[in-house]
Amino acid sequence: MLLIKIGGGKDINRDFIAEDIATLIQRGEKIVISVYTDKKAMDIFLMSYAGLVNKRMVASLQKHGVNAIGLSGIDGRLWEAKRKDVVYAVENGKTKLVKDNLTGKVEKVNSDLIELLIKHGYVPVICPPAISFCHEIVNTDNDFASATMAEALGVKEMVVLFEAPGMLKDVHDEKSVIATIEKEKLGDYLPFAVGRMKKKLLGTQTAFDRGVRKVYWGDGRIAHPIFNVLNGIGTVIS
Amino acid sequence: MLLIKIGGGKDINRDFIAEDIATLIQRGEKIVISVYTDKKAMDIFLMSYAGLVNKRMVASLQKHGVNAIGLSGIDGRLWEAKRKDVVYAVENGKTKLVKDNLTGKVEKVNSDLIELLIKHGYVPVICPPAISFCHEIVNTDNDFASATMAEALGVKEMVVLFEAPGMLKDVHDEKSVIATIEKEKLGDYLPFAVGRMKKKLLGTQTAFDRGVRKVYWGDGRIAHPIFNVLNGIGTVIS
Repeated sequence: MLLIKIGGGKDINRDFIAEDIATLIQRGEKIVISVYTDKKAMDIFLMSYAGLVNKRMVASLQKHGVNAIGLSGIDGRLWEAKRKDVVYAVENGKTKLVKDNLTGKVEKVNSDLIELLIKHGYVPVICPPAISFCHEIVNTDNDFASATMAEALGVKEMVVLFEAPGMLKDVHDEKSVIATIEKEKLGDYLPFAVGRMKKKLLGTQTAFDRGVRKVYWGDGRIAHPIFNVLNGIGTVIS
Repeated sequence: MLLIKIGGGKDINRDFIAEDIATLIQRGEKIVISVYTDKKAMDIFLMSYAGLVNKRMVASLQKHGVNAIGLSGIDGRLWEAKRKDVVYAVENGKTKLVKDNLTGKVEKVNSDLIELLIKHGYVPVICPPAISFCHEIVNTDNDFASATMAEALGVKEMVVLFEAPGMLKDVHDEKSVIATIEKEKLGDYLPFAVGRMKKKLLGTQTAFDRGVRKVYWGDGRIAHPIFNVLNGIGTVIS
């Protein structure tokens, strides 16, 4: 089974991605797709994201003959999270205790549902939010959730697509792609990681902790995004 | 199998509805839920609706121990629609031909997916948009789609919940509920139907045309909305 994580950037080309997925499925590959968001915004924003981005990915896949089903972590209790009791936020320079923050960490995955859908020919397209053990809708870190999902499903290989050709040595030079990284040395690359990349790096580290053996990072903007990374165009971490 | 249609009004109480559904499921009833929208707005609005209203209904059901799964008509090609080639719109008093209008009529339902989920203990919560035979996301009339879905599933009884206690003789008097209507005489009630109610009436007529034998109309704002209508509080059409 191959887990494919897709970035939320505006230049990500869903059609290119869907085309590759269609080919992989024709070859008998089992696929689970996770649509990325790292926006820690309010409930309503998340909902519209879950509605908008998720359903558009589903429609792109349908166009390529892949019978996709879009699900959030709420549906079928797909992603169950432990809600954070309290979080600290900085407001006007002061650290504040926030008690009504609806975020959580995914601890339990309904892998039965994912396997049921795949067994019957559907491709699940999964996105936040999650549902807490006390039934609240909670925002959650998708990188962490994906790693937890990979473990629950016994996923060994993961594809991560975003708006860059891979891990860059120099963030301003798209040609400075680091082709391979040893997973044990992943931490050494934290200084090269800027912004979102830092989060992706930590997410990948979690994935390895959860049993994943190989992670491909690659460009979600160009044609054949998935075949590119599987053929070594991008960054391969193992 | 019981098909429950829930209105999109702001006073509809999802928790009350979820409570009744939980009880029905404990009793072994098979349930399919359809969340209502009649807004013919743009794609993005629909998406956020599909995200927001649908997922909140799912979370309400989860809170009551019902393992709901929210799906749009796009997911798994649940609702396949024939896209309307051209529609006519009135703009500044002039009738205009619109060629890029993304609406359609649901003609095919993936009942296998619904039955698969129900068989495995999930309750599907379904909402627009649909997917066209040419893979476009299309807005669709939920009343008509529900009737088509009822036929595909062999549904004989349908519950329709909205922001009124039933079909009213006088729209300004909530006590003027018409308790029973013979399905053959449904057309006679069109003069009493105002606004959305007219659409509901036509939708119910379609449901009867598609093999449904009994339709319950009732109040989605108060406690025990489903048990009320099943016990005759509201309008029973048969």
